[in-house]
Amino acid sequence: MKGLTINNKGRLTFDGYDLAEIADDFGTPLYVISEKRIRENYRRIYQAYKKRYDKIRVAYAVKANYTLAVVRILADEGADAEVLPGCEVLIALKAGISPSELILTGNNKTEKEFKEALNADVGIIVLDSVSELAKLSDVAKSLDKTPKVMLRVNPLIDISSHPNISTATRETKFGIDIQGGVALKAFEKAVGMQSIDVVGVHAHIGSQILSVEPFKEEVEKILDFVKQLHDKLNFTPTYIDLGGGYGIAYTKDEAPLNPESVAVVVTDAVKSRFDKWGIERPTIILEPGRSLVGDAEVLLAQVGNIKNTSTIKYASVNASTNLLPGIFLENRRYEVAVANKAGEKPEEVVSISGPLCFSGDVIAKACELPRVEEGDIIAILNTGAYCQVGASMFNATPRPATLLLGENSVDIIQKSESCEDIMARDVLPPRLSKK
Amino acid sequence: MKGLTINNKGRLTFDGYDLAEIADDFGTPLYVISEKRIRENYRRIYQAYKKRYDKIRVAYAVKANYTLAVVRILADEGADAEVLPGCEVLIALKAGISPSELILTGNNKTEKEFKEALNADVGIIVLDSVSELAKLSDVAKSLDKTPKVMLRVNPLIDISSHPNISTATRETKFGIDIQGGVALKAFEKAVGMQSIDVVGVHAHIGSQILSVEPFKEEVEKILDFVKQLHDKLNFTPTYIDLGGGYGIAYTKDEAPLNPESVAVVVTDAVKSRFDKWGIERPTIILEPGRSLVGDAEVLLAQVGNIKNTSTIKYASVNASTNLLPGIFLENRRYEVAVANKAGEKPEEVVSISGPLCFSGDVIAKACELPRVEEGDIIAILNTGAYCQVGASMFNATPRPATLLLGENSVDIIQKSESCEDIMARDVLPPRLSKK
Repeated sequence: MKGLTINNKGRLTFDGYDLAEIADDFGTPLYVISEKRIRENYRRIYQAYKKRYDKIRVAYAVKANYTLAVVRILADEGADAEVLPGCEVLIALKAGISPSELILTGNNKTEKEFKEALNADVGIIVLDSVSELAKLSDVAKSLDKTPKVMLRVNPLIDISSHPNISTATRETKFGIDIQGGVALKAFEKAVGMQSIDVVGVHAHIGSQILSVEPFKEEVEKILDFVKQLHDKLNFTPTYIDLGGGYGIAYTKDEAPLNPESVAVVVTDAVKSRFDKWGIERPTIILEPGRSLVGDAEVLLAQVGNIKNTSTIKYASVNASTNLLPGIFLENRRYEVAVANKAGEKPEEVVSISGPLCFSGDVIAKACELPRVEEGDIIAILNTGAYCQVGASMFNATPRPATLLLGENSVDIIQKSESCEDIMARDVLPPRLSKK
Repeated sequence: MKGLTINNKGRLTFDGYDLAEIADDFGTPLYVISEKRIRENYRRIYQAYKKRYDKIRVAYAVKANYTLAVVRILADEGADAEVLPGCEVLIALKAGISPSELILTGNNKTEKEFKEALNADVGIIVLDSVSELAKLSDVAKSLDKTPKVMLRVNPLIDISSHPNISTATRETKFGIDIQGGVALKAFEKAVGMQSIDVVGVHAHIGSQILSVEPFKEEVEKILDFVKQLHDKLNFTPTYIDLGGGYGIAYTKDEAPLNPESVAVVVTDAVKSRFDKWGIERPTIILEPGRSLVGDAEVLLAQVGNIKNTSTIKYASVNASTNLLPGIFLENRRYEVAVANKAGEKPEEVVSISGPLCFSGDVIAKACELPRVEEGDIIAILNTGAYCQVGASMFNATPRPATLLLGENSVDIIQKSESCEDIMARDVLPPRLSKK
């Protein structure tokens, strides 16, 4: 993981900050996220495209980590935002992203949500089905507005990622099938509507993709579809939104996807086809989430108890798998390090378990680590995406704080939760009050 | 699912309440839980044992559903509580369970937590490792208290449940191995300590077990171990805690575990062995969680958009899989019904998807249902255990309210969450404020 080094005390540092000291100062468990890494990640993806293609927009997929300060940092870099209706819209706006920079997605948008989106002057609305198209058209008429719309299509692309995060399979709930002419019919209907302004084609093929090929296949299939739109409907998209999916390296064995390689393939394909057709080149929209924040964070935890079972040594820590939901959702494996012994060589095999009353609460299995003892600080790497935002309060365990590492200062950007917070929504009816 | 019937309007009712009307009145998504079912579930398990064996304690595993009113109802029935240190203790106390009725479990208890437990005069502390034993002994000495203690042992029992909820396998993080004499040594050490009062043996073999055999094997292995404790250490347990694990029927194909069958096997074994040995019979402790609340609740959701893909019809609803985490943690399948068309025959195959930007967000796949249309109310059955308590705010979606169905009234016992709640812990450092 970038940003990690070992200092002269033999301890793990992140952006130069000693993680064992951070754990001492702020307590554990604690998410620690790097402002520098977020900014660098954004610039790398943006520049990979910008230097090859002028009309580029990068919309941060807010769901990956909707901590306000994180969204704010990306807003400060110039990012637009890809959001679901409701709280994600509010978070993006509060972070300083303007309504016109919002791309509203989702597969179950209601009339009420469309109304709110139109009243907020959301930039572009992505429609996921003909059912949504009909709803939006009705709402637009009633409000006398003409929203900008993209239709999400399913180009049918098999990525070698986990099924839960593959979004262009034959079985997926997302998008309108290009195959069988379904998407073309939907566009025909949409383009004919006075109430909406169809501006583009949207696709997103999945998450945590580590090779260029699926993106090449995606852009080719989308461009084939654009040709159909042009030839059969005389419709030309102003925007082509290719979604996100850029994979990061969770383990030493993995190589992250290089955005440069994807940018070459995508921009070359778009330029050559549009120029050949003699049509004005579209704006390309990207929706990275995980690749902007995933490798910018570690989760720190402290070892409580040690146990030797007949099969392995367990070191239990005060962070749990409910803070790392990808373990179950994506079969994710996280690398761990002993922050206060980072300079020492591995000398034993140990499993890191959490405190929950749940057998599956094992954070990392059979890790080669220096000798692990009570009080050690364990750093769980690459936790920036889909961790805070998917965390639960299983066993009534409060969620930890998040610390932002800045160039000159550190700041708590999300406070830790209390038992009072966890019980805040409970109401005891008078008839059940204690006797 | 018990308590469900169809009324003369062809709608699904729960404890006599029309679920489509409830959805209209209180909105969706909405968890709806039955007070009557919870009370009946408790009484069935308690009586199954009580009529066969006098010394019985039933400790509700609070983690299954720690909504305050739910814990309060069980407290009112006379239940003790099995809790983790921290918020679960506070919730149980607030629900009216006395400190002496608490059984404190977990595998990562810290010195601080032991101190809090001793200061709160928690009834029995279950130790999961020799590491915990040493910690508690130190704390007890420093506070000049003599806590009652059980040691959790691993009797090595393979249950045919999901690995994440099998807690007595060779690989599990829980308990001290009986095999190899490890647990015997731990008891020898514990029994010799002046600072603690060893009162019993604790085991828990897993969750959602649907046959009697694993419980028979458990009690036999525990009794074999008790014999060793008696013969080799001259130690006799006052308590034998056999944990929980009683399975419920999630689908029509499953039969719930009958507590009567388990009670026969367990009480017969304990009586015959202890009487043969001429030792005073111990108190049997049970720790049911899921079996008290699991089948007492439904989750209501409304259909938003409909889509026909090349493989299946999708009906998307406003509840999502992050409210049903067992789908990922236990590979759980939930049955669903169309509440407003419960009297109609199945006529199509539909998948019910949630609104999240996540391909895995499909609540129920390929269900045979009456024709599903926009606005229909979908009831997801048997959601009482491990749903509210494991829910996340993925995509910044607020968690729904919980409605309690009482005999004469209904009450909101957990309010729905707001966007402000979701953002409540966020802090924007001044240097990141908008320019």
